Amino acid sequence: MYIILMYDIEVNDEDNPYVLKKVFNICKRYLNHIQKSVFEGEVSEAQYLKLKKELFDILRENKDSCIVFKSRNEKWLEKEFLVKEDIDKTSNFI
Amino acid sequence: MYIILMYDIEVNDEDNPYVLKKVFNICKRYLNHIQKSVFEGEVSEAQYLKLKKELFDILRENKDSCIVFKSRNEKWLEKEFLVKEDIDKTSNFI
Repeated sequence: MYIILMYDIEVNDEDNPYVLKKVFNICKRYLNHIQKSVFEGEVSEAQYLKLKKELFDILRENKDSCIVFKSRNEKWLEKEFLVKEDIDKTSNFI
Repeated sequence: MYIILMYDIEVNDEDNPYVLKKVFNICKRYLNHIQKSVFEGEVSEAQYLKLKKELFDILRENKDSCIVFKSRNEKWLEKEFLVKEDIDKTSNFI
């Protein structure tokens, strides 16, 4: 299945300043990074369940948001870039 | 058609500090706000062209990013909230 994943992580938060970086690195292992907090890609059902499990261990209810749109076929989705940022500047978390 | 729109706006930028708020308010007129910089909703072709025109007047190439995923039918897309933030806190731009 084809998925688009987008997250919004609360960052000014002492108890765990690394949530954003961890979520980013997990998503990068399964999906393609297309915008600061947006990933897309083809995954199997098993991969999707593994991705979700890893994210559930880190994401915090009421603080963070993570939404996934799933489509059985990439062809049913048309993607349009209205404007493009320089993705590299948001791709490498140092 | 059903669209998902997501943007990433460069904000620490003196020449136009209001781009983010303008983009937010334009999107809110056409779509439903579901995450900090993510909107979704059903629009006609004419509405979509109008929305794009308004956004093109404000968005800046290489600074901002705006991606739209289009699906001819909302039913072809399944949405899953892995975790939910309190959307109201991100919904009202003062």
